[in-house]
Amino acid sequence: KINGDRLWDSLMEMAKIGPGVAGGNNRQTVTDEDGEGRALFQSWCEAVGCTMGLDTMGNMFAEYPGTDPDALPVYIGSHLDTQPTGGKYDGVLGVLGGLEVLRTIKDLGIKTKHPIVVTNWTNEEGTRYAPAMLSSGVFAGIHTQDWAYDREDAEGLKFGDELKRIGWCGDEEVGARKMHAMFELHIEQGPILEAEGKDIGVVTHGQGLSWTQVTIEGKDSHTGSTPMPMRKNAGLGMARVLEKVDEIAWSHAPHAVGAAGHIDVYPNSRNVIPGKVVFTVDFRSPDLSVIEDMEARLRVEGQKIADDMGLTIAFEKVGGFDPVAFDETCVSAVRNAAERLGYSHRDLISGAGHDACWINQVAPTAMIMCPCVDGLSHNEAEEISKEWAAAGTDVLMHAVLETAEI
Amino acid sequence: KINGDRLWDSLMEMAKIGPGVAGGNNRQTVTDEDGEGRALFQSWCEAVGCTMGLDTMGNMFAEYPGTDPDALPVYIGSHLDTQPTGGKYDGVLGVLGGLEVLRTIKDLGIKTKHPIVVTNWTNEEGTRYAPAMLSSGVFAGIHTQDWAYDREDAEGLKFGDELKRIGWCGDEEVGARKMHAMFELHIEQGPILEAEGKDIGVVTHGQGLSWTQVTIEGKDSHTGSTPMPMRKNAGLGMARVLEKVDEIAWSHAPHAVGAAGHIDVYPNSRNVIPGKVVFTVDFRSPDLSVIEDMEARLRVEGQKIADDMGLTIAFEKVGGFDPVAFDETCVSAVRNAAERLGYSHRDLISGAGHDACWINQVAPTAMIMCPCVDGLSHNEAEEISKEWAAAGTDVLMHAVLETAEI
Ligand SMILES: NC(=O)NCCC(=O)O
Ligand SMILES: NC(=O)NCCC(=O)O
Repeated sequence: KINGDRLWDSLMEMAKIGPGVAGGNNRQTVTDEDGEGRALFQSWCEAVGCTMGLDTMGNMFAEYPGTDPDALPVYIGSHLDTQPTGGKYDGVLGVLGGLEVLRTIKDLGIKTKHPIVVTNWTNEEGTRYAPAMLSSGVFAGIHTQDWAYDREDAEGLKFGDELKRIGWCGDEEVGARKMHAMFELHIEQGPILEAEGKDIGVVTHGQGLSWTQVTIEGKDSHTGSTPMPMRKNAGLGMARVLEKVDEIAWSHAPHAVGAAGHIDVYPNSRNVIPGKVVFTVDFRSPDLSVIEDMEARLRVEGQKIADDMGLTIAFEKVGGFDPVAFDETCVSAVRNAAERLGYSHRDLISGAGHDACWINQVAPTAMIMCPCVDGLSHNEAEEISKEWAAAGTDVLMHAVLETAEI
Repeated sequence: KINGDRLWDSLMEMAKIGPGVAGGNNRQTVTDEDGEGRALFQSWCEAVGCTMGLDTMGNMFAEYPGTDPDALPVYIGSHLDTQPTGGKYDGVLGVLGGLEVLRTIKDLGIKTKHPIVVTNWTNEEGTRYAPAMLSSGVFAGIHTQDWAYDREDAEGLKFGDELKRIGWCGDEEVGARKMHAMFELHIEQGPILEAEGKDIGVVTHGQGLSWTQVTIEGKDSHTGSTPMPMRKNAGLGMARVLEKVDEIAWSHAPHAVGAAGHIDVYPNSRNVIPGKVVFTVDFRSPDLSVIEDMEARLRVEGQKIADDMGLTIAFEKVGGFDPVAFDETCVSAVRNAAERLGYSHRDLISGAGHDACWINQVAPTAMIMCPCVDGLSHNEAEEISKEWAAAGTDVLMHAVLETAEI
């Protein structure tokens, strides 16, 4: 079994970097704080005897040697970046859980045939730079590196420039590594495990996602002196589209969700009728046809609303991935490990996107989930117990050891 | 008659300071650009032989002497600050029109009994610092200066500190001046004069305003893994309130308008259900009881929406003024001047708030309006013709000369 106290101490130590305003973290991708977190992680990995690889997307690979020089490594990976008002565990548990696996293996003198590599994937969250899971996506060949480098944040700073600025752009060609398998441990970010009192979620599938950026344009004009019939209020158009988004998602519930988390209003002045609003609609479902239906209805209903109000509306798909079925052998390794260790478990569909979803396209992959309090995530109040973290990491270790062959 | 070309040249010269991105202006209050605009205005006033007074709110008073040392001055005033994406005429025409009146009087060697003072009121627009008409409000005793100094912009910078930083905080006690009367020339910012082909609006009344800042709080959580029934989506609550705002305003149309121009969503991340939204509802009507009804319904309907959705909602009144009836003698002076000069005119109710609305509480006041293209204002594309500007300024001069006694 892994050392739960040591794991917890590392989680708390990492959480000191990029603290939030309410007990969580703001350690967004390719910021100075991200750089600090990376340096701490690297120092820990080197202390275990790993060599660190760094690719041109800033993905970090801490390699712990195996006994067979020709065997492909087994990967453990997640992310150290956070939401602007994020928690201490989302992503971080998967990376530091991987580190704890290496520390335990070293302590116990365990040798595996396959090397084990712990990975920190760059920009999983996708807040500063859409889309989410950007660098695992480039690794898996979903996006080109040039396209990723050109992504801009709200200030117009490019991803590639910021990665170089913080000093974490490596030389290694992204995606060149071949993997025997990859495992990702992550908090559930949903309510099911806690509600059912289960220690472990065996993730068999991941639901798909569609991000549509909607731009509505009207005419900015005076809120006082523009008569009601002459208004072209882009803000009101947005309100009506948001109501539709909710209606569309509910029409497929419980097999779909939908909301807009990002909304920018221009010129955002109290006495100016909004002339332009840009917002991103997030639809998800485990069923591809449901996602396609929701996307299509958003466009049709949005266009109707805009036409009725004399507004223009434009839709741009800024992120998305299809529903995922994880590798059956890897999933079984997770389920067997939980069973062997005596942890209660159930099969789960991941509600969130994860780096594992992209890596699954290029290597056998599976995920392990542990509960989080009230299913709350993407909130500084995100919380888990030390026991949950330890149980998830135990299962991670055992699944990895089975796959890496002792 | 005034010199329309000279007036136009000055308008175009001022518009070079704080240029916008689409042909208009971004010269927001107590910014460096505001300071530059003030310096230019002061240099022009001194060239006409005025002395410049400056009070502790940064209000500027360019005084042109009269023949009777005991006579109270007649004021001409408006504002040089603009919206973030504002036009070249909103406010500026009233100040530079006043300057043009002084230039013409000087050219023609006209002497008046009462001095004439051209005023630039600080922070009329209210975008950077709510409420609008802040400094004429302090002058008229509506707000205290301490309270005004404490207003904060979106970056948390205080009004008082910024006024001092740009070097335009004077020594003169605000509100100490007594006025014989005040006249404000302004563009209509609405469609009526242009539609009816009238040169001049004789403003008899101003409609009242109510700004309610609404804060809706839910719970920020993951857009993917939070089931629909567990969501507390403050963004969706905002959407429903915006729909109600529109419905409430229409229920009183054409005697009311309503919209929200300012909307901030937190944490504003694509994959986080908004945990908090802050927005400002702007309701207006010439009828106080209608404003009161709209405010009350906003609170009742907003509370219902929040309760139904498990959200909290809070309302704060951040700006407002009652409908105004301008001084009948001053209004007649305007109407008579238009008549005498042969300009077509009609009586108007101002849709926007103006410094004149506050000054009317401490001195006999009236307003003159000239048309603007498509009624469009608070937009960089705001436009007027040289002839409209000249006609309004002619009427301003004649009303002022009648009141200041040649
Ligand atoms: N796990 C997680 O929060 N990933 C971010 C991508 C998403 O929005 O699902
Ligand atoms: N005239 C003008 O736009 N004033 C700003 C205050 C208001 O919103 O009415």
